[in-house]
Amino acid sequence: MRQSRLFAQTYREAPAEADAVSHRLLLRAGFIRQLAAGVYAYLPLGRRVLRRLEGIVREEMDRAGAQELLMPAMQPAELWQASGRYSAYGPELMRLSDRHGREFALGPTHEEVVTSLAREEIHSYRKLPATVYQIQTKFRDERRPRFGLMRGREFVMKDAYSFDADPAGLDQSYAAMYAAYEHIFSRGGLNVRAVEADAGTIGGEGGTHEFVALSDIGEDTIVSCSHCGYAANLEKAEAGRAAEAGKTKNGSKPTPERIYTPNVRTIEELAMFLNELSSALLKTMIYEADGAIVAVLVRGDREVNETKLRARLRAAELTVAGADAVARVTGAPTGFAGPVGLNVPIYVDREIADGEGWIAGANERDYHVRGAKSGRDFSVEETGDFRNAAEGEGCPRCEEGTYRFHRGIEVGHVFKLGTKYSEPLNATYLDKEGRNRPLTMGCYGIGVSRMLAAAVEQHHDEAGIVWPAAIAPFRVHIVPVSMQDDAQRELAKSLYERFPAAGIDALLDDRDERAGVKFKDSDLIGIPIRIVVGKRAAAGEVELKLRDRPDSMALTVEEAFKLVFASIRNQEITDEFL
Amino acid sequence: MRQSRLFAQTYREAPAEADAVSHRLLLRAGFIRQLAAGVYAYLPLGRRVLRRLEGIVREEMDRAGAQELLMPAMQPAELWQASGRYSAYGPELMRLSDRHGREFALGPTHEEVVTSLAREEIHSYRKLPATVYQIQTKFRDERRPRFGLMRGREFVMKDAYSFDADPAGLDQSYAAMYAAYEHIFSRGGLNVRAVEADAGTIGGEGGTHEFVALSDIGEDTIVSCSHCGYAANLEKAEAGRAAEAGKTKNGSKPTPERIYTPNVRTIEELAMFLNELSSALLKTMIYEADGAIVAVLVRGDREVNETKLRARLRAAELTVAGADAVARVTGAPTGFAGPVGLNVPIYVDREIADGEGWIAGANERDYHVRGAKSGRDFSVEETGDFRNAAEGEGCPRCEEGTYRFHRGIEVGHVFKLGTKYSEPLNATYLDKEGRNRPLTMGCYGIGVSRMLAAAVEQHHDEAGIVWPAAIAPFRVHIVPVSMQDDAQRELAKSLYERFPAAGIDALLDDRDERAGVKFKDSDLIGIPIRIVVGKRAAAGEVELKLRDRPDSMALTVEEAFKLVFASIRNQEITDEFL
Repeated sequence: MRQSRLFAQTYREAPAEADAVSHRLLLRAGFIRQLAAGVYAYLPLGRRVLRRLEGIVREEMDRAGAQELLMPAMQPAELWQASGRYSAYGPELMRLSDRHGREFALGPTHEEVVTSLAREEIHSYRKLPATVYQIQTKFRDERRPRFGLMRGREFVMKDAYSFDADPAGLDQSYAAMYAAYEHIFSRGGLNVRAVEADAGTIGGEGGTHEFVALSDIGEDTIVSCSHCGYAANLEKAEAGRAAEAGKTKNGSKPTPERIYTPNVRTIEELAMFLNELSSALLKTMIYEADGAIVAVLVRGDREVNETKLRARLRAAELTVAGADAVARVTGAPTGFAGPVGLNVPIYVDREIADGEGWIAGANERDYHVRGAKSGRDFSVEETGDFRNAAEGEGCPRCEEGTYRFHRGIEVGHVFKLGTKYSEPLNATYLDKEGRNRPLTMGCYGIGVSRMLAAAVEQHHDEAGIVWPAAIAPFRVHIVPVSMQDDAQRELAKSLYERFPAAGIDALLDDRDERAGVKFKDSDLIGIPIRIVVGKRAAAGEVELKLRDRPDSMALTVEEAFKLVFASIRNQEITDEFL
Repeated sequence: MRQSRLFAQTYREAPAEADAVSHRLLLRAGFIRQLAAGVYAYLPLGRRVLRRLEGIVREEMDRAGAQELLMPAMQPAELWQASGRYSAYGPELMRLSDRHGREFALGPTHEEVVTSLAREEIHSYRKLPATVYQIQTKFRDERRPRFGLMRGREFVMKDAYSFDADPAGLDQSYAAMYAAYEHIFSRGGLNVRAVEADAGTIGGEGGTHEFVALSDIGEDTIVSCSHCGYAANLEKAEAGRAAEAGKTKNGSKPTPERIYTPNVRTIEELAMFLNELSSALLKTMIYEADGAIVAVLVRGDREVNETKLRARLRAAELTVAGADAVARVTGAPTGFAGPVGLNVPIYVDREIADGEGWIAGANERDYHVRGAKSGRDFSVEETGDFRNAAEGEGCPRCEEGTYRFHRGIEVGHVFKLGTKYSEPLNATYLDKEGRNRPLTMGCYGIGVSRMLAAAVEQHHDEAGIVWPAAIAPFRVHIVPVSMQDDAQRELAKSLYERFPAAGIDALLDDRDERAGVKFKDSDLIGIPIRIVVGKRAAAGEVELKLRDRPDSMALTVEEAFKLVFASIRNQEITDEFL
């Protein structure tokens, strides 16, 4: 590709609204352009990276025995109604009507469609197991599209679906996809952790893992043990077993004591007012779960984990109760709720049950109680894990390590669906004994366009993108210092002909620009190997620079070729080699 | 791929609604499934063919110097309003609103989007020429989806767009795409004719060609000369110069004569009533063009060509006038309109102007006139070509050949757009003299999924599909007669391992089915080479059959390999070879 004709220009500055490094760099370097919020065009450089990612995904899916198909984006609303998701998916589902008024969803995912296909194509255990996949444009009307390709409304996904006779078969299909995902992310040059996750609205009862690319801008918090292999996202991570139970200076009391706390409502205000650690205080949260009111108790320095609570309550909708509901059930304004005397189901976090002497709201304006104890002073609907894990606390699995927190970007997700879709959509097969049984399913997604952004988040420096070789738009960037110089121009052109003939993509900067501009653009675009054709061109010498190293080397053309070929064969370019 | 696990089943019968051979065969053989009218899923076999077609298209586009990009399906309505097409495109444009009520079109084509991109990326003549393309899913809400993939509502297209400094540059870009199209269709095994076409609502003032795959079910009629190279679709084809002008038995008259024709309204009735040829009669059609009434005169045995008429009138909407309008302007019921005494602009086809003695309606119930002459008995707004060409008439270009008619399927279309989009969307560049000028554009489409269907229309027999090798889902179909037979099973498996290792896709029919069922399915699916592993497996012998030939040959395994490799190298498999 000749850069003079490249359908893209570079910018020194990114638009002010670009809110992530990857977003800024991909815009500045001419890889993507925004057409509307969360809707992007991939210019030729971006399309090339996307194609490389698609190629890696496709190879690994094929290697894992998955069969590629292509399902339509337009999905009849009836299918989503049959699964119950047409209303449950909410406003994120893009909807449209055709000229006859028939309703369609624009697919954010394809469980319904693929299950309806499997219902027709798989009738016997002899056809099992089968895994199918597609690489396709998906649509999701995000409330807040952000970070460029990271959270878009139209994006490229690989979605795969497995069909098995039973859960044991699903375990194998799931393991094969899990392994393929590890290969894909590793080949793409991404630093990704697999973590246990919550199945959310998509999933069934089985296991689920997220693949998270570590990055400071990530919207996911992942929790991992410093000792054992346990890792999970924050929504899912089991709370640790804190060493110290809740102890207050005043310790236990035979019965809770009412204390006057005028205008003291928040945990911080209360801790300061009483000169106690917030870990001695009891936080009482009132929730509305599908219309019913419940209370949840966690330590003052903890956060309620709504995912765990919702899962326990099997609630479709869970929201913090409004001031009216709080006043109705506690008899007091917000800020003074407490478990003593409270007449709603109370879910108690283990730390609260383990401790005593708790300071809590008194369900009375300007009053708290001191010395409360779970089970003695209030009845307990259930004791369990209802809080977020905390950084630094002990791992509950190995009881040796401590929890570390990282930020990350979800780039893949694998789910065991079980029969969640096959049962309502009646996708069954005949087993060996001739019995009709529902198919056992799994589903497996990768955000291909999100991988592109995550790769930039992980691989850049102040000057621009530093593409991993396997997904770079080109392998080699040929930069003649001056196209006006005959020797430079001719040598550059001869290299530009020779590389593609050897199967190596090259970009030739044949623009009439100053060398400084060319080098800046080259750093910005981030092609792994740069060959500068300068003053020594007449002598057949060039300078070679790797994008991820500071120094460059003077080489003959033949040496440069040798080195480029070595890099293509994935040989490490060691200092000795140079 | 092992056929036992193939995510597809075959059917002996196609659904009753399948209305074309390609539709029936693709459904029966398990290549596609319908999800809604005009909305299809590609099962693994169909996806493989689609990928091969995409590969050919991509290679030829790249070779022609086009740059691949990917634009979003979601297009802001404002862009379509700026070009004026948001209303003009009508109900075929799929529309949706996002959660904030912002309107989007689901792209049936991308002129607006690509022009808005070019406005940002191309600022100088130095960046010209540039051609970009994408292979992408498109949406069009067809009034009557039909023929399976032929006329769908969601389909795969390649669309390309060229940007040039001036019309001379466009001519070159257009020629490069035209040549690439010829390569694409030829490599895909399609018998395609390039014909001159009408630009319709998409195009500008320049030239345009359709690439039409010949097929009896085609909805296009193409007209070609038996002598010179002229070919055009019927909408566009110039009317021939008929040898005989309109002559009636009564010949010319000094003034038209009123004749009583009770209840005689149609051309057929009139010809029979007067015992005249319909070519002696004058057909007067009353049209409403953007609200204005006009009359068009053609010979009684001709059809008005509304595309030509609309182009001449530059009308956005052209419809045959209703009975009320006809009564108002002619003073008579429908069936008695004629030019004599008619007070609306009259457009006269050349054949009418050339002849005389015409018999026409008298604008009076139950009366016609005889002996009318253009220009003498009625005034003429314009004389021109306002009719469809007719089969068998003389070619107006070479004046030697005669017109032949064929049916065909439009699989590609190339347009010279000029500045139709760059001007309203303000996509300009600075020329060498520093002047701001609009980009000169072309656009170039290929219906990739339609090519798939057209290939089946052109390549099938009674037993099933006969895929051209370059786009076949697999190259080789290995069919052991019995998987229960150890020698057969082992030899089949060894072939199945050996072919892919040599880079040749193979499908292994490892099902426990009767040989007859396997052969029927094999014919239906249509893989070019079938290797049957039967009784002589123990001796290392197989039978090889080409799908497009009736006879099969007994060969050793090594001979079979040699022959398969020869076919991969695109060598003609001659009888001598066998």
